[in-house]
Amino acid sequence: MTVRFGLLGAGRIGKVHAKAIAANPVAKLAAVADAVGKAASDLASAYGAQVCTIEAIEKAGDIDAVVICTPTDTHADLIERFARAGKAIFCEKPIDLDIGRVKTCLTVVKETKATLMVGFNRRFDPHFAAVRKAIDDGAVGKVEMVQIVSRDPGAPPAEYITRSGGIFKDMTIHDFDMARFLLGEEAATVTAQASVLVDKKIGKLGDYDSASVIITTRDGRHCAISNSRRATYGYDQRIEVHGSKGMVAAENQRPVAIEIANGNGYTRPPLHDFFMTRYTEAYANEIASFIEAVEKGRKAHPSGEDGLIALAMAEAALRSVREGRTVKMSEFDL
Amino acid sequence: MTVRFGLLGAGRIGKVHAKAIAANPVAKLAAVADAVGKAASDLASAYGAQVCTIEAIEKAGDIDAVVICTPTDTHADLIERFARAGKAIFCEKPIDLDIGRVKTCLTVVKETKATLMVGFNRRFDPHFAAVRKAIDDGAVGKVEMVQIVSRDPGAPPAEYITRSGGIFKDMTIHDFDMARFLLGEEAATVTAQASVLVDKKIGKLGDYDSASVIITTRDGRHCAISNSRRATYGYDQRIEVHGSKGMVAAENQRPVAIEIANGNGYTRPPLHDFFMTRYTEAYANEIASFIEAVEKGRKAHPSGEDGLIALAMAEAALRSVREGRTVKMSEFDL
Amino acid sequence: MTVRFGLLGAGRIGKVHAKAIAANPVAKLAAVADAVGKAASDLASAYGAQVCTIEAIEKAGDIDAVVICTPTDTHADLIERFARAGKAIFCEKPIDLDIGRVKTCLTVVKETKATLMVGFNRRFDPHFAAVRKAIDDGAVGKVEMVQIVSRDPGAPPAEYITRSGGIFKDMTIHDFDMARFLLGEEAATVTAQASVLVDKKIGKLGDYDSASVIITTRDGRHCAISNSRRATYGYDQRIEVHGSKGMVAAENQRPVAIEIANGNGYTRPPLHDFFMTRYTEAYANEIASFIEAVEKGRKAHPSGEDGLIALAMAEAALRSVREGRTVKMSEFDL
Amino acid sequence: MTVRFGLLGAGRIGKVHAKAIAANPVAKLAAVADAVGKAASDLASAYGAQVCTIEAIEKAGDIDAVVICTPTDTHADLIERFARAGKAIFCEKPIDLDIGRVKTCLTVVKETKATLMVGFNRRFDPHFAAVRKAIDDGAVGKVEMVQIVSRDPGAPPAEYITRSGGIFKDMTIHDFDMARFLLGEEAATVTAQASVLVDKKIGKLGDYDSASVIITTRDGRHCAISNSRRATYGYDQRIEVHGSKGMVAAENQRPVAIEIANGNGYTRPPLHDFFMTRYTEAYANEIASFIEAVEKGRKAHPSGEDGLIALAMAEAALRSVREGRTVKMSEFDL
Repeated sequence: MTVRFGLLGAGRIGKVHAKAIAANPVAKLAAVADAVGKAASDLASAYGAQVCTIEAIEKAGDIDAVVICTPTDTHADLIERFARAGKAIFCEKPIDLDIGRVKTCLTVVKETKATLMVGFNRRFDPHFAAVRKAIDDGAVGKVEMVQIVSRDPGAPPAEYITRSGGIFKDMTIHDFDMARFLLGEEAATVTAQASVLVDKKIGKLGDYDSASVIITTRDGRHCAISNSRRATYGYDQRIEVHGSKGMVAAENQRPVAIEIANGNGYTRPPLHDFFMTRYTEAYANEIASFIEAVEKGRKAHPSGEDGLIALAMAEAALRSVREGRTVKMSEFDL
Repeated sequence: MTVRFGLLGAGRIGKVHAKAIAANPVAKLAAVADAVGKAASDLASAYGAQVCTIEAIEKAGDIDAVVICTPTDTHADLIERFARAGKAIFCEKPIDLDIGRVKTCLTVVKETKATLMVGFNRRFDPHFAAVRKAIDDGAVGKVEMVQIVSRDPGAPPAEYITRSGGIFKDMTIHDFDMARFLLGEEAATVTAQASVLVDKKIGKLGDYDSASVIITTRDGRHCAISNSRRATYGYDQRIEVHGSKGMVAAENQRPVAIEIANGNGYTRPPLHDFFMTRYTEAYANEIASFIEAVEKGRKAHPSGEDGLIALAMAEAALRSVREGRTVKMSEFDL
Repeated sequence: MTVRFGLLGAGRIGKVHAKAIAANPVAKLAAVADAVGKAASDLASAYGAQVCTIEAIEKAGDIDAVVICTPTDTHADLIERFARAGKAIFCEKPIDLDIGRVKTCLTVVKETKATLMVGFNRRFDPHFAAVRKAIDDGAVGKVEMVQIVSRDPGAPPAEYITRSGGIFKDMTIHDFDMARFLLGEEAATVTAQASVLVDKKIGKLGDYDSASVIITTRDGRHCAISNSRRATYGYDQRIEVHGSKGMVAAENQRPVAIEIANGNGYTRPPLHDFFMTRYTEAYANEIASFIEAVEKGRKAHPSGEDGLIALAMAEAALRSVREGRTVKMSEFDL
Repeated sequence: MTVRFGLLGAGRIGKVHAKAIAANPVAKLAAVADAVGKAASDLASAYGAQVCTIEAIEKAGDIDAVVICTPTDTHADLIERFARAGKAIFCEKPIDLDIGRVKTCLTVVKETKATLMVGFNRRFDPHFAAVRKAIDDGAVGKVEMVQIVSRDPGAPPAEYITRSGGIFKDMTIHDFDMARFLLGEEAATVTAQASVLVDKKIGKLGDYDSASVIITTRDGRHCAISNSRRATYGYDQRIEVHGSKGMVAAENQRPVAIEIANGNGYTRPPLHDFFMTRYTEAYANEIASFIEAVEKGRKAHPSGEDGLIALAMAEAALRSVREGRTVKMSEFDL
């Protein structure tokens, strides 16, 4: 079977997914929709696809799956529409910034028995996946303490911040998902601190640019997350998992692995400076996983519920910062 | 001038300091006191010193300084006695487990104008000191986020736990001092989580063996600390300081720097398995710094106040765990 | 312009090049020829190309370039045929195992003014290319001493050895080209030692499986090469360039960048176990470079002369081993 | 038993050994002799020793052992005198620059049954010793190929070069000994190339500042050595041993293990800039090994024969460079 795709949104991340679909031997990019006509037609012509309206994709009998790369505030509506239209759905995170809206959306997904996968791409990074595999292979024993460092090369523009939902829902949400991916047990509490250290404009918009989070589970496992919107040396993405028998860690990735030595010492070039080059393989593997789930009729992961729980953890972190207390996940009715 | 020393306590750490004093060209180990006569005489004979009572050292006109390596519950009394006797005092941390007792002790130190140095040896580790120097040299700009990982090779016996004051006052206290050493600004809040993951006996004694802490300063700087009483791969001691211009980190130390490669991959031997071998240079540098302060009549660092503040941070962490909230350092009257 | 390709030879390396051509936006795989019909048709159908005879490709007016991936003993003949047919030619190394045959072939290439590029893929590895760029940027000053380590994961089968021309023409030839790429000056002498340490069958075939080579230039620069047909820990490919101002080195590449620590120490997984996965990017960049040369009518590098000189260095190394002496490159009439 | 020492030569290396002797619990520095009276008296007073003439030490009944740190051209005479005087002898390398003179000297040592140890300190470096131990433990299987990189931070002054015996006898000789230490089989051939790349003055003195050497054994094992009198990034000392089952390598040593990251990349400080700080532990372990041999009446290693063979390998390397051929060790009558 070839999985035929409709792509909704031909922007930056849409192009990444289009390329991955085109390169996949069991998938075909059939249709592209975008409010900006030229964006849609450029992408469609590059991969031999049709430019379509969203309605047309919804009704097309020969389209099996959609990839939603439109603005966040359209995600939940589109998921519901395409779930009802019987299409398999891959949606970029988050489903919505509001927990209630996500829940009603997931009710529709459940009722329609639609396949829904949420774009937590990092689970598909070969290095992070190898960490997960090492845990599964018993290399570290029972998982006890996870450390996640996630630092962006630079702060996004103010207009992005405004629509982002804030650092916890925009940036830390990936780390919340990674925490769940690695801890092997659901979060019981979230405790956080957040500051404005990088860009005062971010503070004026009511957001933070630096955050530290501690998650605990019922068994007492910990996950500590360190976030910043600034890392002069590149895109800093590290995880480290300590267990009863040992530790497994994923190192940062570098575009070139050379080292220059002179009187100043030994210098290696900076890390990747952009999430898209850092996570190139993760994006390709992610879509491949979705295609496989659709083709074989299996449940796709990460699911809508995974998206919901990570969002609630982000909400909990924000509440913790504002109220100066540890927030229990049981405070949320998920 | 040669600084003549009396050593109080000829146990494990006493021996370390005795050796450092003996090797120092401007110091002389003159007297050793210990409740166990043989311990005192063995150590005294190894370095050509006299076995004395504490009283004799107190009264000896030719002893300039004492090193206190006796049990914790005797520290404050001994500091007061030797401050009144006009000796310079180096005391192993902590001064006392009770903040009030430390404060009254420091009042005596202040009144007598005694030189008092507290044994936070890690400030003198050449690698951590190089991190501090890099900060001072402007290598990372303004300090913003500090990460400290401190994991012991294994949990101490129950009897040690009982007298230790708990993980925060016994183990994390070093990291609290390191946080202050690196942050460049006093802590405003302490937030912590703690668990029993390593050894249930520790939990039965009312203590924890695993802890995560977030410190914030008034400017919004963060320091995150990760502690565990277990690290199968050796004594894990890392720091990482992020600033406005970059990052500086100190790597773990290894007794042998070899690597073996075969079909299983590339393997380097474990880290040091004991704090005394890991911090050999730190201990020697620490005593050298004290000797220099005494010889030149300068104030010694870390001071009694440094000891007091780190203790209060430990108390704050414990309070945070118990009350599930962020604790302000202003709650303490220091 | 789109460069239209004929592929000669649909084996292992032919597939690699076919994929790179198909993925390149300015190239098109038009025709595939292979003595094994199924190999040709499988590859052709995967990329929408035609199955053709070599003669048909030779005569096809709409084919601009060929990629020669056939057995070594056919390379020189095919280069001559396609040079006369006016096609641009990319040929896998070596052109021939015999220096005289290579020279007559290159005479034809010169007379026909054909574009010929030889497949020394390592020049296009991003890490090795970054080393070259660092040299060009002046990072190490004047190049003085180059060290190349090149160790295969395992020895090839006896039948491969028989046709390979021996370790120097088959394996070290890549390092000879790399030496020229990095030294910035032609080799004046070659001195070598070779042994049979890995597989006695290789010795019985008159070949070696382990070699050490020293190249010198007229200025007295050195390049040392270390080769082995065995590396239990993966495909070991390192270079290190020392100059008057410093050093630049390229590290080994790893498929997954994780590290596991426990009581046995810190272990990273093995290196790539196959040259095709190690040099994936190099192969793609190599073909892209050839396409660009053809499209823009520029000279392609590495050229036929580059292939000839590396072959002569291999011959010199063999002569050095057999005669126990340093061999001058001036002994060869190139 | 306490081993009582006479030190001959109170220069740079003499001080290092004096300190090691003083720190050793079973040794005592009893006497110091030096042509420069102040050098002798300064060192003697620092460790409570007597200033003596060489004759007095020779005749002293209470001196068990001597450490010879005088100029090279006095070594052989002093060894013979003290062998006849019944003292155990530690002598800095080389015994002499002339093979014939070394042989007659060793005849005296043999006749007198004197204990003689030659100062190849690197065998006692904890990291190199760990490499040797890994080999002994079977970690790499049968040793096949050894790589030694040894690069000095900077070239010595001309006057040193004049007396040094040339790069092979002065610098590479340490690597020849290391090759023997690691190969597990005697050298059968030596092939070398040498150049003047660092300092033309060295060339005018008839010496070289850059060298590449290949050693082979009868079994066909290889050892490649790379030497330079310049390394801008510090004292570069690496070894790597490849065997049938894997590889073991010793990394360079750094005085501080920090790393600074910013827009220019990740930078670690330079290596040690001086052999004495790099090999501090090696020197201490070396003397401890000698003391143990004397105290327990055991044979000391490396022996006079070890010194002789390394010297012959140096002579072979020089002959190889001059004659452009592989030199067999059987050409030497050792």
